[in-house]
Amino acid sequence: MPEGPRALLRTAVDAAFTSVDRGMDRSRVEEAFLGTLGFSGWQLGNASAVLAEEARIGHAPVTRVENACASAGFALRAGARAIESGERDVVLVVGLEKMSDSPSPHRRYWLGVSGDTEWERLAGLTFAGVYALMASRHIAEYGTPREALAEVAVKNHANGLLNPNAQFHKAIDRAQVLAAPRVADPLGLLDCCPVTDGAVALLLAAEEVAKPLTDTPVAIAGTGAGSDALALQERDSMTSLAATRHAADEAFRRASFDRSTVGFLEVHDCFTIAELLAIEDLGFAAPGEAARMTLEGVTARNGRLPVNPDGGLKAKGHPIGASGASQAYEAFVQLRTSAGPRQISGVERALTHNVGGSGASATVTLFERV
Amino acid sequence: MPEGPRALLRTAVDAAFTSVDRGMDRSRVEEAFLGTLGFSGWQLGNASAVLAEEARIGHAPVTRVENACASAGFALRAGARAIESGERDVVLVVGLEKMSDSPSPHRRYWLGVSGDTEWERLAGLTFAGVYALMASRHIAEYGTPREALAEVAVKNHANGLLNPNAQFHKAIDRAQVLAAPRVADPLGLLDCCPVTDGAVALLLAAEEVAKPLTDTPVAIAGTGAGSDALALQERDSMTSLAATRHAADEAFRRASFDRSTVGFLEVHDCFTIAELLAIEDLGFAAPGEAARMTLEGVTARNGRLPVNPDGGLKAKGHPIGASGASQAYEAFVQLRTSAGPRQISGVERALTHNVGGSGASATVTLFERV
Repeated sequence: MPEGPRALLRTAVDAAFTSVDRGMDRSRVEEAFLGTLGFSGWQLGNASAVLAEEARIGHAPVTRVENACASAGFALRAGARAIESGERDVVLVVGLEKMSDSPSPHRRYWLGVSGDTEWERLAGLTFAGVYALMASRHIAEYGTPREALAEVAVKNHANGLLNPNAQFHKAIDRAQVLAAPRVADPLGLLDCCPVTDGAVALLLAAEEVAKPLTDTPVAIAGTGAGSDALALQERDSMTSLAATRHAADEAFRRASFDRSTVGFLEVHDCFTIAELLAIEDLGFAAPGEAARMTLEGVTARNGRLPVNPDGGLKAKGHPIGASGASQAYEAFVQLRTSAGPRQISGVERALTHNVGGSGASATVTLFERV
Repeated sequence: MPEGPRALLRTAVDAAFTSVDRGMDRSRVEEAFLGTLGFSGWQLGNASAVLAEEARIGHAPVTRVENACASAGFALRAGARAIESGERDVVLVVGLEKMSDSPSPHRRYWLGVSGDTEWERLAGLTFAGVYALMASRHIAEYGTPREALAEVAVKNHANGLLNPNAQFHKAIDRAQVLAAPRVADPLGLLDCCPVTDGAVALLLAAEEVAKPLTDTPVAIAGTGAGSDALALQERDSMTSLAATRHAADEAFRRASFDRSTVGFLEVHDCFTIAELLAIEDLGFAAPGEAARMTLEGVTARNGRLPVNPDGGLKAKGHPIGASGASQAYEAFVQLRTSAGPRQISGVERALTHNVGGSGASATVTLFERV
């Protein structure tokens, strides 16, 4: 029987405490944040209270953050800020989604309404449809080859093979992606992320608190976020997400380093086109250039700028409200050189990027080995 | 036709900007937080994106916070912290609930699941039932007279008469409260807050930014929050909310003043018993003493420690995810001496208190005239 939302929370939180190199007592957690969208189908509500119970952190306050697919990214920001403000020394950040046994009409409800309702959903446009429109426009404007979209999926499945936590351990090739049934032209089944259960727990600590606990701490070097209209027609572009650009600019303004020293990216590849948009909007490729980079292998795990070494939302899976925290987990293990067979060599800085509502909100977080 | 959620958001946000004494351009808002529980019945999702659209604040990030009935209280904390951390100068905090035309099964769903599911809801226990158990136990332990519960409703309806934004403008007397139909013994219909639509918008600014905008700024002097188990049976007491005690202690630890100089309280009186519990848990009465205070008129608008001068959730109404922001609005207008006919004289400090999930979470915010 698959684990329910309470068990998923407990498993993730217990694993976070167990993983602290020199141990940490739960009583040190002063506050917690939970990113989740649908939470638990029809049955449970008050997600923050459920986390308080499952995490066993006494009367420490818990806040639920819900920003559609960017819920955990925004929860992570809130957690980092609690420490940055000087109010907290230790904060728990959790992301959770339990999709697999949510009744299908219910899941369609809470997932569907995270897109625009008046102009898109009620006209029949799904999330796959929205990203298909962006893909079509990107192809029209930049001549983006369909093979580049396919290569995103191929690369992320290859990376997922090396990630024990990935949902798919299955190599695919370009021909399979191109021949897969259409979901929303030009996107086929293998251009789309799957339905996923998952929970991720992160422990954040002030620098002086973290240092005695581990010899290999990882710092959050900057965070940024942005928003935009929900409906495509209200945005300034169909081939670029302003929320991502705004988030990235803000994060780099706060950090002490620039893009040139970032070793790898974890980006929000809910559909293959989204990875190309992200690379461009984050400022790692000129508009229209990410396709070529991808086809040339630059973004492969052994390339010059690996993108989604954990398999990305495509292969690792996309547990909606947990994905942003999962990206941070990958940044953490890679920068600590503890990623096992998927370890990228020589990386000291990483960027994670989480998007909600097809670009209505976005967060960017920068990480650095201390 | 009643206003929908988009119109409620727009009305509240527009009013906030209009109310700035010397005006403020929307482009100065760097971030926003939205507290809401059910948001909009079945139709709209991605509440943060909808606020971004309606508030017209460019690409500034918006975070939705959902902590059941304490959603806006937690959103307010998040907003205050964004400024406290030094990251932001101007932040918009909004609370919203649209209950009146939410289909009844849907409202029962999202409201009902905010209580404990496994031990309470599925056994038939409603929120009124949970508070009735607390009331019964309080009566048994302290001999709390039923008249004291009734007086909470009488006082709050009297206060509501003077508040143009209150849902009820209707004086009631103790005999009416005591004779009202039972909802969950010992609580009757007039012990319960109503079903309410509402939105509230607050503009927070760093001190140096606020000063040129107004001659009568109000400062947030401290915030605190706490959590507890959702089910009554898992808590250490049925006559006291540990989450409230934890939140109050934290807020006063951060503030530069103590309880003795607080001029009035805005507390979470979703049921009459909740106001008595709040006064005790916040440390303004010994356990079991709030009933006597209430019967003696101490908490009346012209008493020594007015409680809920705006009418409270009982008479002003309880738009779930907005109530915490509404309390802050009352603190603001009272401390600026702009509360009109319900102005309390000589108050310089105020406390607001917002509870989620019958005590699973609570926030306390302290305000001070600068």
